[in-house]
Parts: sequence; structure tokens; C-alpha cells
Amino acid sequence: MTAPKKVVLAYSGGLDTSIILKWLQTEYGCEVVTFTADLGQGEELEPARRKAEMMGASAIYIEDLREEFVRDFVYPMFRANALYEGLYLLGTSIARPLISKRLVEIAAEVGADAVAHGATGKGNDQVRFELAAYALNPDIKVIAPWREWDLTSRTKLLEFAEANQIPVAKDKRGDAPFSVDANLLHTSSEGKVLENPAEEAPDYVYQRTVDPEQAPDTPETIEITFERGDAVAINGEALSPATILTKLNEIGGRHGVGRLDLVENRFVGMKSRGIYETPGGTILLEAHRGIEQITLDSGAGHLKDSIMPRYAELIYNGFWFSPEREMLQALIDKSQEHVSGTVRVKLYKGSARTVARWSDSSLYSEAHVTFEDDAGAYDQTDAQGFIQLNALRLKLLAARKRRLQG
Amino acid sequence: MTAPKKVVLAYSGGLDTSIILKWLQTEYGCEVVTFTADLGQGEELEPARRKAEMMGASAIYIEDLREEFVRDFVYPMFRANALYEGLYLLGTSIARPLISKRLVEIAAEVGADAVAHGATGKGNDQVRFELAAYALNPDIKVIAPWREWDLTSRTKLLEFAEANQIPVAKDKRGDAPFSVDANLLHTSSEGKVLENPAEEAPDYVYQRTVDPEQAPDTPETIEITFERGDAVAINGEALSPATILTKLNEIGGRHGVGRLDLVENRFVGMKSRGIYETPGGTILLEAHRGIEQITLDSGAGHLKDSIMPRYAELIYNGFWFSPEREMLQALIDKSQEHVSGTVRVKLYKGSARTVARWSDSSLYSEAHVTFEDDAGAYDQTDAQGFIQLNALRLKLLAARKRRLQG
Amino acid sequence: MTAPKKVVLAYSGGLDTSIILKWLQTEYGCEVVTFTADLGQGEELEPARRKAEMMGASAIYIEDLREEFVRDFVYPMFRANALYEGLYLLGTSIARPLISKRLVEIAAEVGADAVAHGATGKGNDQVRFELAAYALNPDIKVIAPWREWDLTSRTKLLEFAEANQIPVAKDKRGDAPFSVDANLLHTSSEGKVLENPAEEAPDYVYQRTVDPEQAPDTPETIEITFERGDAVAINGEALSPATILTKLNEIGGRHGVGRLDLVENRFVGMKSRGIYETPGGTILLEAHRGIEQITLDSGAGHLKDSIMPRYAELIYNGFWFSPEREMLQALIDKSQEHVSGTVRVKLYKGSARTVARWSDSSLYSEAHVTFEDDAGAYDQTDAQGFIQLNALRLKLLAARKRRLQG
Amino acid sequence: MTAPKKVVLAYSGGLDTSIILKWLQTEYGCEVVTFTADLGQGEELEPARRKAEMMGASAIYIEDLREEFVRDFVYPMFRANALYEGLYLLGTSIARPLISKRLVEIAAEVGADAVAHGATGKGNDQVRFELAAYALNPDIKVIAPWREWDLTSRTKLLEFAEANQIPVAKDKRGDAPFSVDANLLHTSSEGKVLENPAEEAPDYVYQRTVDPEQAPDTPETIEITFERGDAVAINGEALSPATILTKLNEIGGRHGVGRLDLVENRFVGMKSRGIYETPGGTILLEAHRGIEQITLDSGAGHLKDSIMPRYAELIYNGFWFSPEREMLQALIDKSQEHVSGTVRVKLYKGSARTVARWSDSSLYSEAHVTFEDDAGAYDQTDAQGFIQLNALRLKLLAARKRRLQG
Repeated sequence: MTAPKKVVLAYSGGLDTSIILKWLQTEYGCEVVTFTADLGQGEELEPARRKAEMMGASAIYIEDLREEFVRDFVYPMFRANALYEGLYLLGTSIARPLISKRLVEIAAEVGADAVAHGATGKGNDQVRFELAAYALNPDIKVIAPWREWDLTSRTKLLEFAEANQIPVAKDKRGDAPFSVDANLLHTSSEGKVLENPAEEAPDYVYQRTVDPEQAPDTPETIEITFERGDAVAINGEALSPATILTKLNEIGGRHGVGRLDLVENRFVGMKSRGIYETPGGTILLEAHRGIEQITLDSGAGHLKDSIMPRYAELIYNGFWFSPEREMLQALIDKSQEHVSGTVRVKLYKGSARTVARWSDSSLYSEAHVTFEDDAGAYDQTDAQGFIQLNALRLKLLAARKRRLQG
Repeated sequence: MTAPKKVVLAYSGGLDTSIILKWLQTEYGCEVVTFTADLGQGEELEPARRKAEMMGASAIYIEDLREEFVRDFVYPMFRANALYEGLYLLGTSIARPLISKRLVEIAAEVGADAVAHGATGKGNDQVRFELAAYALNPDIKVIAPWREWDLTSRTKLLEFAEANQIPVAKDKRGDAPFSVDANLLHTSSEGKVLENPAEEAPDYVYQRTVDPEQAPDTPETIEITFERGDAVAINGEALSPATILTKLNEIGGRHGVGRLDLVENRFVGMKSRGIYETPGGTILLEAHRGIEQITLDSGAGHLKDSIMPRYAELIYNGFWFSPEREMLQALIDKSQEHVSGTVRVKLYKGSARTVARWSDSSLYSEAHVTFEDDAGAYDQTDAQGFIQLNALRLKLLAARKRRLQG
Repeated sequence: MTAPKKVVLAYSGGLDTSIILKWLQTEYGCEVVTFTADLGQGEELEPARRKAEMMGASAIYIEDLREEFVRDFVYPMFRANALYEGLYLLGTSIARPLISKRLVEIAAEVGADAVAHGATGKGNDQVRFELAAYALNPDIKVIAPWREWDLTSRTKLLEFAEANQIPVAKDKRGDAPFSVDANLLHTSSEGKVLENPAEEAPDYVYQRTVDPEQAPDTPETIEITFERGDAVAINGEALSPATILTKLNEIGGRHGVGRLDLVENRFVGMKSRGIYETPGGTILLEAHRGIEQITLDSGAGHLKDSIMPRYAELIYNGFWFSPEREMLQALIDKSQEHVSGTVRVKLYKGSARTVARWSDSSLYSEAHVTFEDDAGAYDQTDAQGFIQLNALRLKLLAARKRRLQG
Repeated sequence: MTAPKKVVLAYSGGLDTSIILKWLQTEYGCEVVTFTADLGQGEELEPARRKAEMMGASAIYIEDLREEFVRDFVYPMFRANALYEGLYLLGTSIARPLISKRLVEIAAEVGADAVAHGATGKGNDQVRFELAAYALNPDIKVIAPWREWDLTSRTKLLEFAEANQIPVAKDKRGDAPFSVDANLLHTSSEGKVLENPAEEAPDYVYQRTVDPEQAPDTPETIEITFERGDAVAINGEALSPATILTKLNEIGGRHGVGRLDLVENRFVGMKSRGIYETPGGTILLEAHRGIEQITLDSGAGHLKDSIMPRYAELIYNGFWFSPEREMLQALIDKSQEHVSGTVRVKLYKGSARTVARWSDSSLYSEAHVTFEDDAGAYDQTDAQGFIQLNALRLKLLAARKRRLQG
């Protein structure tokens, strides 16, 4: 790879990406443009601007992407009830393609030939950043300093920072006891004190949810309204996507909802252990399932269920911008036309449970299901023929078995 | 269908199957053999014997099938982490094939040409009973009185009971406010007061689990040990399958674990709403996932996940004794060879969460995943090539797009 | 079911549906409207009109649906490369929903409360007709005389015809040696002389394709051009969908292409043996695969392949008008955006083989694949990392095996 | 990677692997053990022995693996009816894991720390060799000289050969017009004159099959007998697996059966064009499908069909020795218990078609399917209930649509 001339860097303002900023300038002698996005990680972005200015970024992009993030990434994913390996709500995975998309777009605007990110060579995020970037611009260079440089220890990093006048916050001088990623959908923690999956995660790891034991002793119920598969209102109040997720995070976090301790399989081949906190997302998944229960028929629902693991795996592995993810999305979106209505969810001490749901688009037919007289809605004798024909091949198999053994 | 000469009836001892017993005798003039199984439903069986004797059953079978039920049906199903429509643990579905199996076996022993059950023509259970019976004996007759007779109202049933000297418990004279099925895996309730899915289920519906709000204020942790995918010990104490499930039910029930309010799609085509309580099963699923997290590799795990919805649907629909269920079981069982180890689960106010897990068969490699120096276990530059080749087709797609757009 | 007042009958003009016409009139005393469609079965329709008039049909619909059939049913299905049970091109299955759609539409136009068809109670067609009808009008009545009447033998049918002045062609007085269904996509033959799958089908069964041994001794090559997955031209000549299929049938039939002798599983539970002739469709499938080979990437192609069996099964079973078929169609159609280009197919003595294909949308990159110097398009060292990370989990598995055995 | 001390090389005796032999000795100063397998590629192996001796191999293994190849690799794969991307019979893919297995086993026997192969860095074979090797021995080193050395042109290779006294056959001095791989299952050709998929493959590429136009003018029928999914006899003569495949190759080759011109997706990300000749395998697939048609029920068959693409992809991508391939194999093998019987296949001018099949294990029931009186085997009125319950959800959907639009 020839050396880059101008690089757009995904810049958080933190120590690591500040070191990368400087390293890119010194290693490649190239211009560095910084891009800092508000995805709801809950940090102020102005300090990032000041730091980037101070370090000589040739241009500084700071953007609030929260609405786009929820509307165009989180919501489409939740239409699928996506869970990776049965449990993980994909909070980190779903944010990466949006960041890459903006990196590539900014590169086009500023005439940069490369983008750079601060993900390590062991994780999934490098894959997600880079697959998304290449899918959007096949000629872009992607620089992953963690795979290139020799700053392989905390000491070396701090030395580099010092040598380059990069300010190091006092609390960053020591080694963080674990690593964190956060956005509007979740907070994830991994590494260090969490590396032994046989040891319980210490309390101080959790940042966004209260310990269920400290949650209110009184349950809270909320009502979430959906239109075509997307949440559009809470307790009857119409809200934007990002506002809904923000509000669900507050409510869920207060009740200790959405904690997950998981050992998962990374795309790069090893297992890792993560602590995830997804308060709003956990409520949203529960409620979405609740509304689908009455508005999706079994043919649609079972098909969705059967492709969900693959869809989730694609997102986890970084293939958001791929034909197959888009094909699956087309299938999923097609199913959501009538997924509209309201679900009541009860939150209490770490759990969120659907307790009621109603919809003008409901397929639930009390007339058919009732234990009472159904006035002819359903003819029970039909079940006889239904069972006989479903049984026919089983009878033929049983007859063969008897014949061969007889 | 010619009239049956001798029928084996799945007999609970309750009013409905007592009426069926009598109805079979009078309608067909046939001998009736009763079969009553202890599947952990929590009722004494001796009253059923007395009642069957009194009503002139020509033979009476009463059997404790709890170990067989858990060992040969529940455990194989839990190896698959089976959930119907994302949420339902299949407590009723998995019990039916065992009952049918014994009905058919007893029919062979006593020379009966038919079996009979008390399931209605609207539900799934008729399908499960009958598909299983036909799969095991293609020539058996199955009699489903609810689809045949004219006792279509509570009043008519009670009149028939009275006219035939069938004792009716006082509390059965009125109409039950909902219908219940129970076994060692779960209790399900449906119908009547539950028929409107927009109304919350009343508290009195729950029978096996305490209200989470009434559960202990202090969490409890337990350790479950697995061998080849099956739970074999609790807190280090080796126990039989049925004993384990019984104990998990006690513990889980105490903590309000395993409640589910679900609208599901019946195989016969309509939606129904059920309240399920599966305390032990909910813990077992959580723990099984926990142990798989460290002992299954991603190839095995993702394949299992991808076929699980189909496996669950087969069981729900009554195809336990079918080639395709057995094929999927072979696939699942193959995966469980190393699913051995111990999981610590924390129970609190309605939730059960894995907090730690360890195993001699663990595939988790701290050496590979560590944020610290990994001593060469993993070469981060490998990620470069891995990403490049995964990206190649995406780049070719992007290049085509650019080319076609000009 | 209450008696119908006005019925729209799928009427071929043949003996069987003529008997049905009369039977409906006499059995139910109802008006009968006939609907006869030209789906390319190769029969004149005017005789059907005369017969219907003569028998007192209250209205007569005769329609040329060939273009709609190919454009809206055959083509969408071929985008999926659909094959039932690996081999069958679904020629009968795909025609039924269109007929039902028109039956239901005509019923609405003429104020009929029922539709009727001539399919027997043993086959798939009754299911396809009726599921489609119910999916389009939940209140329509469907009458299937073959499941209702007592004309259960050839003799009784002929007696009924005679008693009702229904003309019987001389060659229909005897029993046909097999049963035929034909439309623009295929001709199928089954029953009677074909009922023993251990006996070869006699030559006279084949009607649309020449015996490969009698086909020309010289191969013929044709070029088929696709746009977005649909064939739009043959040998450079732009043609309508039905014209393309008609022409491919002529060419293929001449070369003996598209014969299939199959034992398949019917939806109603038993196996049946059919002889299918699908000359044009066989060429179309081959060519569509050929163009997809260079225009679909592997992610899209493999996803399509994986859902194809389910898609084909849905069509075979009669679920064309179902949410899940429509969802799968959305997925498939999404994949076809760039499936444009031309394929050269060689026809010879029963086979049709792709020998060349080209496209402006091709993803084939000679630069990448070449054995010659690729000028840096592909870095072979990337393969090292690609393999290492794909191998990582396999190594961890192997290490565990060694550890546990060691 | 530290330098290897002793390497087991997959050695064909040809120019390329002879150069590798020498290069390993000179580059690493290591011992080289050669391994040459007879997989039915149709070349004498003694010349390879002499060459290896001459070049100073420290040990020479020459083995006839034909029976093991067919019995343990080809046959299990054919039980699945595996086709990659709908058409490719995986002839190369299935041979690689066996070679790797023996390489790793020999390495253990001779105390070698590395294995080496002659596959390039652009293809699939490197992946297959290496994934198999690592799955069997996580500590083995794998050397892929084509990815390491600088012999990147034909000229350099020949110079190296000359400089090292490696004999170069006269016809190898020029550049081969395409590249060939052969074993008992197939011959594949790719590269050079085949690199443009828009140009027809020249006749001289085909090596194992006669041009269909030159094939006999008279068809030939053969009968293949299966037991539990595997071919065990031809025309009534019991034969070993390798003998059967050899014989089918002769017969099929004579009739021009099994030619395929394919553009496929390589695992490493690009498309390539190959010409495959699989005469015996094509007949075997056709016959296996023929016997499954009467011995597998639809539940088993459709499940097999649905997982086949994934199974084929795993083999293509090199994951033969992986938990997920073994899990799928368990599923497939479970289905084959009754896949026994005989199929008659007709071969003529390039095609192989099933024309008859029979089995003691047949599930085909003439009694059920007959157009004649079935003596009560099937009650046509059962179809009514079967259709009604399958239609129920469609009716509910249609009713909703009407309600919402109304």
C-alpha cells in the first residue's frame, strides 16, 4: 500500500485516537481530518474539537448522528428481532457501518484517499469498519494503526503521548480495568477484569443500568406504539426514533433492565466475554415481539425467525453493506406492513415483560379461538382431515417399518 | 371408521375424561382401558384409579413417567435451546408424544384397536396425540370425542355426567375461569378470562410461580453442571433428570422465574393467548446456553441456532416421531459431545441470569483474547488478509456500481 | 356450507368439467358462469364457448392470459431458480394461482358467491386452487365436485353425461391411458400406465418434446438476453415474455430438451409419479443460472440458493398468495437488480448447456483470477491471514481434543 | 514462523511440485518427505518415486487411496446430493481433506513439523489443504511456497529447474494452455484459454468425456443398486466403491455425460471459470436422487434439500473437518437408513436420466395414488379439512386486508 496523503480519522477525542492522530501525521506525513460522531455515547464532543484543533487536524467534523443511527440502522435491525447467538442485541455491531459511511463520505468531500480507525487487530470492529468502507468505496485505503505500529504496550503508548505533547488525563495514566464502547443502543464492557468467564463481573463494570436489587420496588408499566414495525410513541406521546430510544434507556436503566453477561464467538475466530447493557433495546425487542404476536401470521413469523440468526450474524460480522443483508432486509421489511399497534410492557427489577397488546391490524380472532360457542367460525371436524393428511406420510413410514421388520 | 372394540383412553381422572370414559362405553359399546401417567402434573393418581374402577374400566394403567419424560423428551429438546416463536418453551408440546407412545404400547399389550384422548378440535394437542399415534402404529384408530359428540356446552356435559352417575366435584359445577395443563416442565393456562390479549392476566392464573414482587429480596445463585448437554448436578449434587427439573422448579418458582404471557400461532391456523409458567425450564435454558457459550465453537453454535426454529416448530406441530425431527436431533446431539461444565445462575425477582461458567472442555482462550501481551498466540497482521479477502467481493460490487453509474 | 347461488367454474370445455357444469346446475340449482383461460395449453377455446352456451352457462368468460401468466407468475418464479425436490420446474403449480385469481375476480364482477374447479381430492391442485381463492376472498365458497359427488367411476360419469345430453367425444368413451395438464410452461402426464415407477414411461406419453434420439444430429446454439433477471430477447430479438417462452418451447421441444420422469411428494401426503416436459423452462433455468454466475456475488447467490427449496415448496403446496412467498419474492427480486446480460446455450439431443455468457454488469474479474501476472489486483499474502483466522477456531477445537485425550 | 525442520510435501511428481521439493530443501535446509497419492487421477506413480529419490527426498510415501477416497469422502457427500452453486459436484474440493489427513498423519509418523502443498495463493485449494491440516493438528506448520517465493513467472520457474537439475519434460517447456486437476471423481480445467467466460471452451480442454456429438447413437441403460444411500452394485454386480465409480466413469465418459462449464465464486472472493467433467458422479447423483424419490418421505427429503447448499458450501470452502460439517453429516446419514433399492438410468449423448426405480423400502403407494378405486386407502373428504385449516390463516389475513381497506 502506498502511503496515504490525507486521512479521515474516526476520532473520539480520547487518548488512543489522539495518539493515532499524531502517529498518522508523523508516520505518513499526511493531513488528518477528524470525524467525531454523537451516536448517543453520552460524552461531550466539544473537548474533542479543541483537542483536534490543538493537534493540527486539517479539518474537523463533529456531527450528531443519533436520529440517523436509530432510524436507519437500529430500527431496521429491530424489525428482525435480531439476536446474535441467541442473546446479544448487537449494540456495537450496528453502529460501525454508520461511522464508516460518514468516514467514506467525508473522505470524498475533503479529497482524502484514506480513512483510519482505532480498533485493534483482535476484535470484530476492525472488520466492521473496513468491510463497510470497502463496500462503499472500493479504492479507499483503510489504516488500522493498531495492526501496524509498535506501540504494543501501555507504557509505549504513554511515552509516545508524552513525547508528542498529547495530554493524558490523570485517570488514564493507569491502565483501565476494562474497555468500554457506548452508543445510544448500548454500553459494552470487556477485557482485563472481565477476561475470566468463570468469575462474576464486578459491580463497577455496569454503567448504564442500576443493579436490579437497587431498582424500584414498584413495577412500572409503559405502552409503546408501533407503526409498520417501528416504535413511534411511548405512553401515547409521538416521539422521534432517537428520542424514543433515549427515553426507553432512562426508564429501562432505572429498572435494571437489559444486563447481559455473554461469552460470544468473534468473527476473527476466538471467544470473548462481554458485559452488555441495553436497557432501551431490551424493552424494544420485547415490545416488538409483543406486537408481532398479534399482527404477523405464522407463515411470515416463522420465516422471519428462520432467517434471523443469519441476519444477526451478517451484522455482527460487519456485512451491513452487503447484497445479502439488503436482501434479508427486503424480506423483513415486507413483513412489517401491518406490524402496528400498542404493547404494554411491565418493568421490574431487571425484567421487561409484555402483559397486554392490541391493534387495529390484529389477526387474533377471539371468534375462532374461544372456548365458548364460536357460532360456526371454526368447524372442528376439519381437524380430522387436517390430521389425517398430515399423518399420511407418517403412516406410510410406519407401515414400511413394520413390513421390513415383519 | 368402523366402531372400536377396545379403547385405551388417556385418562386424567378429571370430569372431562371421566365423561369420555363413559361416553365411549355407551356410544361404542366397547371396553375402555384407562391410562393415567404421572408426568409431574402435581396431582395424586390414586383417585383416578378409584374412579376408573368405579366406572368399569376393563383395565387400569397408572404409571410414573417422570424420569422417562425428562430424560428422553425434555432433555433432548433442551439440547437444542428450543423456543417456539422466540419465547415458548414447549412445555405442553413435548409431553404429548410420550403419552401417545404409551397409549399405543398399551393398546398392543391389551389387544385394543383404538386409543382416545380428551383434546378439543380447536387446539394443537389433538394433532400431537394423533400424529404420534399414527407414526407408531399406522393401523391404530384414534378417537377424539370432542370432535364427535354433541356435548357441546357445559350444561350438556353436566347433564351427561349426572345421567351417568359420574361424580362432579362441587367446584367443577361452575365453569372454570380458564383451562390448565401441567407437567414437570410447565403449567399453561388459557381460555376464558385470558381470551382478550389486550387485558392483563389476573394474578390468580399463576399457579406454579410466585409473583416476582413477592419473591425474596435477596438473590440466590445456583450452580448447574452439564454433561454432554444434559444437566446432571445442582450445586455439585448429582441428581436424576426428573429430580433436577423438580428442584429447579422449586427454586425458580420461589423466585418468580419463568412467567410468559404469549400470543402464539396454533398449527390449526388461529392465534391463541397462553400464560406459561416454566420455572425450572427457564433456568435450564439459560444455563445450557451459558455452558454452550464456552464449549461450542461458532460453526456448531450458529448451525444449531439456524435450525432451531424449525426444530421447535416440528415439536410444536406434533412431529416428534418424524424422520425430520430425528434427523435434526442427530445433528443437535452430535454437537453436544463436549457441552460439559458448570454454570452459575443468579435468580432474582423473576429473572435467571448466567453470571459465570467454567469447563474442562472450554474453548475460551484467554491467551488469544487478552488485551495484554498474548505471547504470539494471535498474529494481528493476519486480520489484514482476513479482511481483504472478505472484502474482495464487496469491492467488486462497489466497482461495478461505480462503473454502471458512470 | 349453504348451497351456492351462483358459481364461477374453471371450465376447460372437456368432458369432466362439462359434467361438473351440469352437475352444479342440477345438484345446487344454481347459475354457473364458465371461465376458460388460454394459458398456452395449445387447445382452441371456441369449442369451449359453444359447449358452455349449449349447456346453459349464465355467462361465459374466455381470456388469453398467456402474457400475464409468464410475466407475473413464471418469470418471478424463475428469478429464484425454483426446483421442487431438486428437479421439478413447477409447471402446474404456478398456473393454479392465476386461474384462482381470475375466478375470484369474475365472481366479484358477476356477483357469484362460489367458485368451482375440477381437481380431484387426491391431488395438489385442489389445495392450490382453494388456498389461492381463500387468500383473495375469505368469504368465497369453493366447490370441488370430485370430493362431493358419487360419480366415482368412469362408467358413472359416462352415464351422467348421457343422461344429461353432454356430448362425449369418441376417443373419450374409453378410459384415457393417463392424465394430462398443459400450459405454456409445461405438459405433465400422470396416472394409469404411469402408476408403476419401476416401469419406464411409454413413448406415447410424451407430447411436447421429440424423443432425444429423434432430435437433430446437429446442435443449435441460441443466445438469451436478460434484464433484471427476466429474459427479454432471443438471439438479439426483443420479445414479450409469453413470446419468449413460446419460442423456447419450440426450439427446446425440437431438441428433446426438458423431459423429466419424477416420483414426487404431494402436499396431501402420498408420492406420485409424473412425466414432465418443460422444454422452454429448462432452457430458461439453465440460461438464468448462466447469467447469475457472472452478475450475482456469492453472498447474494448463496442466500438465494439456501431459501430456494422453501420457496419452491411454497409454490408447490399452493401458497403463492401468502405473506411468506411474498417476503421471499421481495428477497429474490432485490437480488436481480444487476442480473442482466446474455447467455449462449447449446441444445443437443435432450440437453441444454451454457457455453458462454457476458454482461456489462459482470462481476467476473479476469484481473483477479488470471494465472498471469495480475498487476497487483490481488495480494496472495492476504490468503495467509484469511486462512489463519478461518482456522483459528478449528485449531482451538483440535487443541481441546488433544488436551482431553492427552 | 520459525523455519521447518522436516516437511511432508504433497508431491505429484510433476514439474511444479518437483521445484517445490527442491526449493524447500534449499530455502529451509530441511528434510523433505514426499507423499504421492493415487486418488484415481489416472497417472502412474512410479515415476514420482524415481524423481523423489533422485531429488533426495528423505522418505517417500506412495499410496493408493482410491477406496478410502470414495468410501469415506465421495460417498458421504453424495448422500447429500451436494451441488455447489446449483451445479458443481465438488470433485476437487472433496479430495483435498483426504490428502491433508494423510500429510498430517505421515508428519506424525516421521516426526515432521510441517507439511507443504503446491496450491497457489489465489485459489480454494490452499484453504482446503490448510484448514484440514490445522483441524487435525493445531501445531502443524503449513508451507505454501506459491505464497512465499519469488518464482512468479514461468521463466523463473524454468530457470530454477534448470539451475537445480530438475528434469523438465519437453511438453512442459512451453506454457500449458490451461491447468488441470483430476481424481476418480472428476477432471477440472481452468485458467489461460478458459479465462474469458464469454468464449466457449475449446474442444481440446475435455479429457475424460467424449464430445456428446461423438457419443454412441444408441442409448445405454444401466441399473445401479443402493444400500443405505451408497451405490453397491451395477447391473446386479456387487462392486467396491472405487470400482463402482471407475466403472461409472467409463460408461459415462463414453456417452459424454457430466460436462459442466461454470463460473463459480471462490471462497477467497473472486469468480473463476472452470470446465468440469464428472461422468460417473453425474450418473451417481441422478441415480441417488432416483432412489431417494421412492424411499425418503417428504419431511426427510425437504429437510435434506434445505441444508444441502450449506453443506456443499462447507465442503467447497474447506471445512470438511469441522463440527458443523460433521453435524450436517449426522443429519444426512440418519436419513439414509432406508435409501436402498435399484435405479435404471438411461445414458445418451451427454445426458443421464432416471427412467425407473424400485425398492423393498419404497414408500410409494399405488394404493393411495391410483386414479382407480383405492379401496378406501385414502378418504378424499379428508382433503376438505386439510385445506380449510391450511387456509384459515390466509382467510384471517384476507379479512384483515378487507377490514383495513373497507
